[in-house]
Amino acid sequence: MRLFRERGYDKTTMRAIAREAGVSVGNAYYYFDGKEHLIQGFYDRIAADHREAVREVLDRETGLEARLAGVLKAWLDVATPYHEFAVQFFKNAADPDSPLSPFSPESEHARVEAVGVHREVLTGSKARVPADLRDVLPELMWLAQMGLCLYWIFDRTEGRERSYRLAERGARLTARGVSLARFRVLRPLVHEVHELFTDFLPGMARALPDPAGRARGE
Amino acid sequence: MRLFRERGYDKTTMRAIAREAGVSVGNAYYYFDGKEHLIQGFYDRIAADHREAVREVLDRETGLEARLAGVLKAWLDVATPYHEFAVQFFKNAADPDSPLSPFSPESEHARVEAVGVHREVLTGSKARVPADLRDVLPELMWLAQMGLCLYWIFDRTEGRERSYRLAERGARLTARGVSLARFRVLRPLVHEVHELFTDFLPGMARALPDPAGRARGE
Repeated sequence: MRLFRERGYDKTTMRAIAREAGVSVGNAYYYFDGKEHLIQGFYDRIAADHREAVREVLDRETGLEARLAGVLKAWLDVATPYHEFAVQFFKNAADPDSPLSPFSPESEHARVEAVGVHREVLTGSKARVPADLRDVLPELMWLAQMGLCLYWIFDRTEGRERSYRLAERGARLTARGVSLARFRVLRPLVHEVHELFTDFLPGMARALPDPAGRARGE
Repeated sequence: MRLFRERGYDKTTMRAIAREAGVSVGNAYYYFDGKEHLIQGFYDRIAADHREAVREVLDRETGLEARLAGVLKAWLDVATPYHEFAVQFFKNAADPDSPLSPFSPESEHARVEAVGVHREVLTGSKARVPADLRDVLPELMWLAQMGLCLYWIFDRTEGRERSYRLAERGARLTARGVSLARFRVLRPLVHEVHELFTDFLPGMARALPDPAGRARGE
């Protein structure tokens, strides 16, 4: 991560990474197929750190807004040391066809983990959620988290103060959206928004487990 | 535009632009304060070309979905020659604090023009829209167009075929969303989504005309 931060992702070679880690290049390739796989390891680590960081707030809060705000702010906390890296890495990850994109098939492991946190935000809350939305809403909430991430990357305020405020506002808005999503008239729209994302973001359709077990083609 | 395309935005100097245009550097600066202002001129031109390109579909169609799909696909048509440029320019424009961002105060002129097209999409359609949403919805529709633009930048399909399909799907979804937005229970949510964007995207709060004439601070 230090090399990526200092030289930029594009200019950091596996050779330099191996040298820095004090291992041979062959050895480095034994553990990671390439730089992209190191990034997947990084995504996994962020996801695991985040899962740990949200424990306390998810054990304490029962309101959906408070749970979601806590989870989003914990994500900002966990990501803080990597802000500088994220700024320069962004142009690689923003391409949805890149294996580095959070929407790619390669990022599935970290994504499933992250969506799982939002599933817990929802199921552990007092919010009443119709059965057919229980798998859709956590994925949409995770997409909202990706939106926050994009905002945070460009946030230059002291201590990323605006991102924290956006996390709170976003949580309030999402909680209202979820409480409205149960209205029968709106449910088809929620499903359609969700389908739009899974159909147009590569990797997502395959990666997100389909509870009904239906085959989902491209 | 050719220089920007060939050398990239960052490496193109005003000096090179002046030489290419066969004018003195002083003369180039007489017309444009710098590269950023050339980009604003470019945005204005895209907006003007788009306004012209949508004339036919807006004169013909009365259904909201068809009008919006036509407007989005016309935007893709107009943007086609600049795809290569957009790919490399993206990292400058994605920063909402940059004057090059479509959300910046500097881009206000092009943005107001583009939002105006969506206002016409709405007012010229058969869709019934409550008065309090008439200024909010065109701005949200323009935001959806910015989402399409982001998707198009990374679209590598032949003829950007996927972007055209997304335009159609997005238009269908938006038309449904608009028809639901008139339900009284949803109106506060629509306003809140809109406020979130205007509060957190620099420039937008100031740039978007407030019909009620209220002062809108940051």
